[in-house]
Amino acid sequence: MKDVFIHPAAIVESKDIGGGTRIWAYAHVMAGARVGRNCNVGGHCFIESGAVVGNNVTIKNGSLIWEGVTIEDGVFVGPNVLFTNDLYPRSQRLPQAQGRYRDKKSWLLPTVVKCGASLSAGAVLLPGVTIGEYAAVAAGAVVTRDVPSHALVKGSPARASGWVCECGARLVIINGLGDCTRCGLRFQEANAGTLLTREIRSAQ
Amino acid sequence: MKDVFIHPAAIVESKDIGGGTRIWAYAHVMAGARVGRNCNVGGHCFIESGAVVGNNVTIKNGSLIWEGVTIEDGVFVGPNVLFTNDLYPRSQRLPQAQGRYRDKKSWLLPTVVKCGASLSAGAVLLPGVTIGEYAAVAAGAVVTRDVPSHALVKGSPARASGWVCECGARLVIINGLGDCTRCGLRFQEANAGTLLTREIRSAQ
Amino acid sequence: MKDVFIHPAAIVESKDIGGGTRIWAYAHVMAGARVGRNCNVGGHCFIESGAVVGNNVTIKNGSLIWEGVTIEDGVFVGPNVLFTNDLYPRSQRLPQAQGRYRDKKSWLLPTVVKCGASLSAGAVLLPGVTIGEYAAVAAGAVVTRDVPSHALVKGSPARASGWVCECGARLVIINGLGDCTRCGLRFQEANAGTLLTREIRSAQ
Repeated sequence: MKDVFIHPAAIVESKDIGGGTRIWAYAHVMAGARVGRNCNVGGHCFIESGAVVGNNVTIKNGSLIWEGVTIEDGVFVGPNVLFTNDLYPRSQRLPQAQGRYRDKKSWLLPTVVKCGASLSAGAVLLPGVTIGEYAAVAAGAVVTRDVPSHALVKGSPARASGWVCECGARLVIINGLGDCTRCGLRFQEANAGTLLTREIRSAQ
Repeated sequence: MKDVFIHPAAIVESKDIGGGTRIWAYAHVMAGARVGRNCNVGGHCFIESGAVVGNNVTIKNGSLIWEGVTIEDGVFVGPNVLFTNDLYPRSQRLPQAQGRYRDKKSWLLPTVVKCGASLSAGAVLLPGVTIGEYAAVAAGAVVTRDVPSHALVKGSPARASGWVCECGARLVIINGLGDCTRCGLRFQEANAGTLLTREIRSAQ
Repeated sequence: MKDVFIHPAAIVESKDIGGGTRIWAYAHVMAGARVGRNCNVGGHCFIESGAVVGNNVTIKNGSLIWEGVTIEDGVFVGPNVLFTNDLYPRSQRLPQAQGRYRDKKSWLLPTVVKCGASLSAGAVLLPGVTIGEYAAVAAGAVVTRDVPSHALVKGSPARASGWVCECGARLVIINGLGDCTRCGLRFQEANAGTLLTREIRSAQ
């Protein structure tokens, strides 16, 4: 793998790491995990076989990414973010539960974090949720259902709390329209209370 | 220790690990910790001197298990599960608090996770709680009091939210009786709203 | 550095560690981080360049301490405590967000944990908060605003729940006055519901 930085105290067993990606101390990337180009994988992270990470992704320290999790391009995964992939977990070594764990189809639910979204520190995602494009999950939030694009959610369980721009700034929507005061992108409410679409892309 | 797998990047100082147990990268099991047979201790876990882990236990990555914690057979400890053992912690190096830390009896509270229970990702257990047999703590829950057998609790603070079978599936109780639709075990409400007992064990 | 214990499996790149401090397995202290005298830095901790830790601080396992965080003397940082320093994080590799990350002044907010305070297991601190002297943040709490001195806060978001003494014990305040039943310190309400001041220091 060309142009991949692997800290001497990291373990990287995957052969599928994109150029420009850096992996820091005590991180462990298993064989069969895929990590794209130009990513940063913080110290103490764990990326399991079967997990898929896109390009330009920042994964802060201590996050754990399992099989069944797909992280698209440009996502921010804060420190100690927790994914899950089993809605009713039991020890696979418990005799009463072993039957369920013979076949992944019986228990493994996928999670998708779409392009440009942010998961802040310590966020917990229940199995099977999808985080929409450019959405933001607040620190310590427990996400129990899908999060729409550009939505900000917070709390336990996580509830809608506002909207955020592609650049990350809060958006103020008045009469269904809003301009980002930081980067100038314009937004329009598509379905009241559910979705925002970019109206016109201003020059950057 | 026979038939114990220890990843080359793990530190295992305990001599009390049961056969068939596997301990993964960057985990640290201190001398004086006890881990039973046929367990899986995920990467980045820490098991302190004095902690007791039974047989057939699954401990996912990054969980921290302190002195005072007892984990019985067949338990599932999800990733980054947090135990605690001190209700009013201060730095032991703070002069005003040093007196309390001279004797463990002044501060150390025990936690017990009973046979077959599950603690999902990022669950936090306050000191001194007992998690009943086959109970389930949802992801991100903060457990501040004892959890009855077979109960499902979620939220911060964790509240009762339903019942689960030995196999992990949700149970629907009607008129005090319920059959598990997955494994067929039968349940009966013992004391309204507090406990379920297995009525008849169906063939598996 | 004299009298500093560094576990053979830790990485300590900082030259600014005080005497008597111990740093445990799989911890990583970056160059440019400052840690005072007589501290304990637990296993799997990460202390970033620019972070400042005082004397007599206990940092339990797995805590992550970033640039912008100042921890004063005698503080207790429980296991997996999460600090943050960016209110609207995005991947720095996302083209739409890169502008903001060119200059730390655009995004980095400071956090201060004052003398003698305690942050229990899994507490999450939003960026920019100050935790007052001898305050206590309960396990699993998500702190979204400043915490007054001696206050106990809990929940998500964290709310005031009582008062604690310098020694850590709960205080009962009656008619604006309270004595600590454990260590004998006396307290007086300064501004109703907001602050307690030590009235007289009893002999210890």
